[in-house]
Amino acid sequence: MPGDLLLANARIVNVFTSEIEQGDVLVAEGHVAGIGAGYQASDVVDLRGAFLLPGFISGHTHPESSYLWLPQYASLVVSHGTTTVITDLHELVNVSGLAAVGRLLQDVERLPLEIFLMVPSCVPASDLETSGARVLSSDVADALQWPSVLGLGELMDYGGVIEGSSECLDKAVVALQAGKVIDGHAPGLTGHDLNAYLAAGAGSDHECTTLPEGRLKLQRGMRLMIREGTSEENLEDLLPLVTDATYPRCLLVVDDRSCRDLLRHGELDAVVRKAIRLGLNPIRAIQLATINPATYFGLRDHGAIAPGFVANMIVADDLADLRPRDVYHNGRLVASAGRCLSDPGSLGGENFSHTVRLNSLSERDFAIPGNGRRMRVIQVVPRQISTHQVLETVRSEDGYVVADTKRDIIRAAVIERHTGSGNIGVGLVQGFGLQRGALASTVAHDSHNLMIVGCDEADMHAAAQEIQRCGGGLAVVAEGRLLASLPLPIAGLMSPDSPEHVVSQLDVVEAAARGLGVTIPNPFAVLSFLALSVLPELRLTDKGLVDVRAKSLVPLAAD
Amino acid sequence: MPGDLLLANARIVNVFTSEIEQGDVLVAEGHVAGIGAGYQASDVVDLRGAFLLPGFISGHTHPESSYLWLPQYASLVVSHGTTTVITDLHELVNVSGLAAVGRLLQDVERLPLEIFLMVPSCVPASDLETSGARVLSSDVADALQWPSVLGLGELMDYGGVIEGSSECLDKAVVALQAGKVIDGHAPGLTGHDLNAYLAAGAGSDHECTTLPEGRLKLQRGMRLMIREGTSEENLEDLLPLVTDATYPRCLLVVDDRSCRDLLRHGELDAVVRKAIRLGLNPIRAIQLATINPATYFGLRDHGAIAPGFVANMIVADDLADLRPRDVYHNGRLVASAGRCLSDPGSLGGENFSHTVRLNSLSERDFAIPGNGRRMRVIQVVPRQISTHQVLETVRSEDGYVVADTKRDIIRAAVIERHTGSGNIGVGLVQGFGLQRGALASTVAHDSHNLMIVGCDEADMHAAAQEIQRCGGGLAVVAEGRLLASLPLPIAGLMSPDSPEHVVSQLDVVEAAARGLGVTIPNPFAVLSFLALSVLPELRLTDKGLVDVRAKSLVPLAAD
Repeated sequence: MPGDLLLANARIVNVFTSEIEQGDVLVAEGHVAGIGAGYQASDVVDLRGAFLLPGFISGHTHPESSYLWLPQYASLVVSHGTTTVITDLHELVNVSGLAAVGRLLQDVERLPLEIFLMVPSCVPASDLETSGARVLSSDVADALQWPSVLGLGELMDYGGVIEGSSECLDKAVVALQAGKVIDGHAPGLTGHDLNAYLAAGAGSDHECTTLPEGRLKLQRGMRLMIREGTSEENLEDLLPLVTDATYPRCLLVVDDRSCRDLLRHGELDAVVRKAIRLGLNPIRAIQLATINPATYFGLRDHGAIAPGFVANMIVADDLADLRPRDVYHNGRLVASAGRCLSDPGSLGGENFSHTVRLNSLSERDFAIPGNGRRMRVIQVVPRQISTHQVLETVRSEDGYVVADTKRDIIRAAVIERHTGSGNIGVGLVQGFGLQRGALASTVAHDSHNLMIVGCDEADMHAAAQEIQRCGGGLAVVAEGRLLASLPLPIAGLMSPDSPEHVVSQLDVVEAAARGLGVTIPNPFAVLSFLALSVLPELRLTDKGLVDVRAKSLVPLAAD
Repeated sequence: MPGDLLLANARIVNVFTSEIEQGDVLVAEGHVAGIGAGYQASDVVDLRGAFLLPGFISGHTHPESSYLWLPQYASLVVSHGTTTVITDLHELVNVSGLAAVGRLLQDVERLPLEIFLMVPSCVPASDLETSGARVLSSDVADALQWPSVLGLGELMDYGGVIEGSSECLDKAVVALQAGKVIDGHAPGLTGHDLNAYLAAGAGSDHECTTLPEGRLKLQRGMRLMIREGTSEENLEDLLPLVTDATYPRCLLVVDDRSCRDLLRHGELDAVVRKAIRLGLNPIRAIQLATINPATYFGLRDHGAIAPGFVANMIVADDLADLRPRDVYHNGRLVASAGRCLSDPGSLGGENFSHTVRLNSLSERDFAIPGNGRRMRVIQVVPRQISTHQVLETVRSEDGYVVADTKRDIIRAAVIERHTGSGNIGVGLVQGFGLQRGALASTVAHDSHNLMIVGCDEADMHAAAQEIQRCGGGLAVVAEGRLLASLPLPIAGLMSPDSPEHVVSQLDVVEAAARGLGVTIPNPFAVLSFLALSVLPELRLTDKGLVDVRAKSLVPLAAD
């Protein structure tokens, strides 16, 4: 019987044996049915000696970091050769809950790529903030039975896991009992702490930044996910760890990539190209992005071109500079010459809208009573997501704190936006460079409440109103006027617009911020981490100021 | 908190990185809890620099081939360092059914090793014989949910799978949908046939005998299980296939090993030693017997010494000649100096007894009417399990066929023994060398009916009665008298006696057969394959003579 598609005269990259084979590949019913010669199909494409390799498997990534709603994200990454994405959709779950994401997964078959879920293990990240959702271990047990779920997402609460006190640990036990894979997240852990953490079953780490750390994680049995994201670039540092003895246990991942990065440089294909440029054998680089993630995640019919495997494939003309020219998903041509061929569609994004629910606000809500006392100030650290706590005597007028732009100390506020409870935490932040106006964002890890920094109450209030108006997103306001915004109406995290449009809006928003004096490179990325109550040192949530090491709320006044 | 056991001053074989690490290994609750220094435990063993490596995982084996009941088998193989066995218990299921094996699996925790089941996919092997059980695809679906089941056992009916007509294929679909691993069995398959077979999802092959075949199987995505059994020795031929590019996808397996071989040479340890002797790097040889099977079968916490992994470990003094000195299972010392430390126990073997149910037999049942016509004769091929069909004019007396020992043509009979139906197939066989008396066995693949070869009706009848008396096994009879027997009362396949006892009985039985003129080396092994109705060319079952290529019963008379 003839098959559906014959890709003839290919140079097939064999990731099992690290060889290039000459031959034809037959596809039937979305799977590879044959390799060799003498096959017939209703549709024949002569590849004229072009390379044919397995589609890339993006083994650890957060699509929400792109600001792009899944169909637009899928169109973009599939045009770069990524045909399978493994993600915990952690941000979306924090806002809208696991059940909503479960319903979403029932529809992702419409996309030109596959999405597999790792059930997020830490929602909410802590009880020091109000989240939109809570995932219990019983929820995890249920979700692990969903067909597109591979395991448990990164165990971020490594402190709790080591102490044996974390709810996270219960979830790990549930996943182990179900025989599912568990992703780790263990920045800097070594020695007895690492061993204790590993007893919970984490099978991978994507947080390594140095050779000794990467080597140790490999020795202790973790798959080394070498991360090359928009902010964290670890490839060059870790690449020497990929040897004949270790390569089967190494993966390339992107973790977080901005829409700008995806559009201009690519997804996993950009990492593969860079690895090859840095000297890694091209077939090995491909293995780290195909068969290795497939093996780790137990996707037995993925990651290679072989009979019985899902026909996810990339055509490319050059392995030294590997640029996906044609991309096949389930045996169907879904992208060509860098463009996705299918209409992205909406995928029920409307089910994740109207997530910004604010109680009525007034300018007074942003006021901080001040009387010349020393106060705790969050100091941002350029190019890092950790913060410092500094104690400063802050300028005040008429009994209220005011911005001290000379010392770069401005105000910050986090407004609970999931239930409209009216919760608001106010604080002080140093390091943005903002001289006037306000910046606001509903992308604020991990609970994604409304985060605002600003020089005065009026603009902070106006920014909040603007965000409410567009259902979430990023906004820049000055003198009560909106200067620029990037609406993210889907969960307050993602936009239904095209990647090109979102990137241009982001350019405008960042330019507007710079126009108000902002000096740090990615102000909205920095803003998005100010509330992250599990990363040292001082954070602000809707419940107030958080001393992360003490795991408790602390007053603004330091004495 | 102190752990349960500290193995101090070890040279730890790290199968993740192919390194030897110096350090201590902490065990708690049956798992590795720490590696390094500074740990405390209630029990400390100073290894004084001995090597510590993961317990071996025997990834494809049939314990029934040892004639040893599981507790005795377990005691023996664990003393050789095998701490995990993956088997389809195909013979036991053929006799006693899947449900009985399922109940058995609930008790195997008492053994000093782990047993994981691959649900047998081809029970019965064909409808041309009467089996003790039938496994339907609905049974497979149920069994795949049992906790100790990893997947579907070897898809032996490759012809049916390729044609798409096999019930085997339905079972493969069930296993694929459940996300389980499927073992292959594809001797000599190449080209389009191999591709078609692989579409059913088989992930491994243990039947390769040549370099080109092994290379092709690797290229097409099958894990290469390099087999070194008692009859099939493929290690030396296939070892050149294990390279830097392929080793993650290669395994060492034993498939079938006799009790004699296990006792005198060992199990997987013997294969590892031989691989090292043939030049394979010792750590790599260990990987092929530990982490590689664990990875293939998705046993995420097996096959390595690492935090969170099951504490199955071997202590050895030399890697070049790797002999397990102490063996730990779940962190407990279970074997030392080649002896298992625990009493094997019975493990409910009595639930598999009384499986030889014969209708009342008379000598006349063995008679073959003969009148000088040409008849089909099964010709055994020395050192092979395939047979030839030859056409011979057979000696007869008084209208009945008699043995023609000069031309080495004797009689054979297969008596249905599961239901006592009275089914009996009679035929002729050439090549045993038997000059008088009869040999009988209830080990007769795959349905394990009672197989008898003999020179006259009286001895064949006596042999059947002897087998019935001891509830199954092997017997040698002459002049109506029992010369020797190896009782196998458990399913007619296995003995509850010690390996030493079984081997000495086997020696006696084989010597007795030689005393009757038998010239072939392993007469009971040859006997056991005479009924295998799926292997060319001519076979005998309880339903009669089977032309395997035609897949049909044929008359004894050839014209």
